[in-house]
Amino acid sequence: MSFVAVDWGTSSLRGALIDETGRVLDERQAPRGILGVPAGGFPAAFDALFGDWMAPADRRCLISGMAGSRQGWVEAPYCPCPADAADLARHVIPVVANRIAMVPGLSDSHDGVPDVMRGEEVQIFGAMQLTGLHDGVFVLPGTHNKWVRVQGGRVLGFRTFMTGEFYALLTQHSILSRTIDPAAPLDAQAFVQGMDRSARGGGLLHNAFGARTLGLFERMSAAQLASYLSGLLIGEEFRVQRLDTQADVVLIGAPALTARYSLALDSLHIQPRVLGAEATWAGAHALHTALSGGDVRFP
Amino acid sequence: MSFVAVDWGTSSLRGALIDETGRVLDERQAPRGILGVPAGGFPAAFDALFGDWMAPADRRCLISGMAGSRQGWVEAPYCPCPADAADLARHVIPVVANRIAMVPGLSDSHDGVPDVMRGEEVQIFGAMQLTGLHDGVFVLPGTHNKWVRVQGGRVLGFRTFMTGEFYALLTQHSILSRTIDPAAPLDAQAFVQGMDRSARGGGLLHNAFGARTLGLFERMSAAQLASYLSGLLIGEEFRVQRLDTQADVVLIGAPALTARYSLALDSLHIQPRVLGAEATWAGAHALHTALSGGDVRFP
Repeated sequence: MSFVAVDWGTSSLRGALIDETGRVLDERQAPRGILGVPAGGFPAAFDALFGDWMAPADRRCLISGMAGSRQGWVEAPYCPCPADAADLARHVIPVVANRIAMVPGLSDSHDGVPDVMRGEEVQIFGAMQLTGLHDGVFVLPGTHNKWVRVQGGRVLGFRTFMTGEFYALLTQHSILSRTIDPAAPLDAQAFVQGMDRSARGGGLLHNAFGARTLGLFERMSAAQLASYLSGLLIGEEFRVQRLDTQADVVLIGAPALTARYSLALDSLHIQPRVLGAEATWAGAHALHTALSGGDVRFP
Repeated sequence: MSFVAVDWGTSSLRGALIDETGRVLDERQAPRGILGVPAGGFPAAFDALFGDWMAPADRRCLISGMAGSRQGWVEAPYCPCPADAADLARHVIPVVANRIAMVPGLSDSHDGVPDVMRGEEVQIFGAMQLTGLHDGVFVLPGTHNKWVRVQGGRVLGFRTFMTGEFYALLTQHSILSRTIDPAAPLDAQAFVQGMDRSARGGGLLHNAFGARTLGLFERMSAAQLASYLSGLLIGEEFRVQRLDTQADVVLIGAPALTARYSLALDSLHIQPRVLGAEATWAGAHALHTALSGGDVRFP
């Protein structure tokens, strides 16, 4: 039976009509992230974009992303790690009984400090389907990057890094913004120089100031500095994560971001598998299948 | 002979009339940082605040701070480290010959990446005078914190940390701004929790996200989170600097900032000497004395 998969994030709303084999029949998107939906406005926003897809009385919909947060349509409490697709399916909650359901995010904890994701969990299980890999490190670059440890098809745990948000803050609002051109294309050499700098361990608070002085002393251009800063930030993630060079790595995200991680992995002689938006739909299909029979039912 | 000392920074202008013994006779300040002075407007801005002090024909003035940068009144090239007060005096350049002179900043280099300060160098030499300490670690908290190694009265080198600027960016422009109250008074316990978290080495990009989730899970209040984030950032400096617990430490800065570093040092059982604005005037006096006789002359 075909179904509707929706990825409803902070700033955008995307959906796909997917048949029972997992094939995407149609796709739609709108700039209607949850921050742009007024209180009580979620049913109308949903109907406006997906009403016709939901016309058949037995058509179901799975929603993932920030729509399941406290500020969203219906709050879906986090499913704790470790978790496999069946665990996640058991935590799906009804929005409209037997018609629309909300996928929860995953939670983890590091020394008592919680960590969370919402939306990425669907991409991870989708990436397992698409790559056939059930063990490895799955990296999802974005505003709040996720590094995820997967073993035997289970998400063991993960760490969030505010890499994308720090890059935006530093290039838009800090003193660095005066000498950096964030719109410049990637300069691989400057990027690797930034990575190397972070690997030496001076710490981001210190190393970021170097992106100021290298401009001040005219050692790097505004275009190079953008890639250098990107390398500093992504280099911090790699320094902390100490990736096993034997690990299978899967990158999931927008091409402009996964390209940078591919470059970073090159220096470790790791060849990642790279996926984009298709991981979301594959994950939604896997979850929908888990909810269509057996002991777990669509709520 | 009495003289005028001026500290002309990015956002403020301060001056003191100082007698030959180093006693401050009068002080003035205005919100006329170099960013608020139009091109060619430095002489007029200087005269407006200090014209009467400069009336005696033999009255001299030493200016330090960002007024000596490329965007300032006259660019004074950096004096490289290691440097003592006499080295710094030799790099002072004339603004108005034999009347007004500009103190240069100091520069250092870490693996080929430059580091710089402007204005803090005067405070450091002043702090040596006031404390009698000529060996130790001098820490100057601010927008761009400086950690300075001093030996035998010489500045061996230093590191800049963008701690104050990161705190402002994160509390004003990031996702953390929604759940943090940066105006709250210091909560010592939350601050130390942040310090401890950084010491475990998860890296700032990851640990900062914890300041989001601790709010989301209602483990900390908006007031506590401000101190926690401050502890995370200052903890990063301490993690990188690996302070020798036998070191003499001098803190120079605004009381609200030095109080946080004193608290951080408490956990290492280090009792720092703490100085404020008086360090600037003491340093200017030491430099003026060095320029008033011997082989180095007021330019």
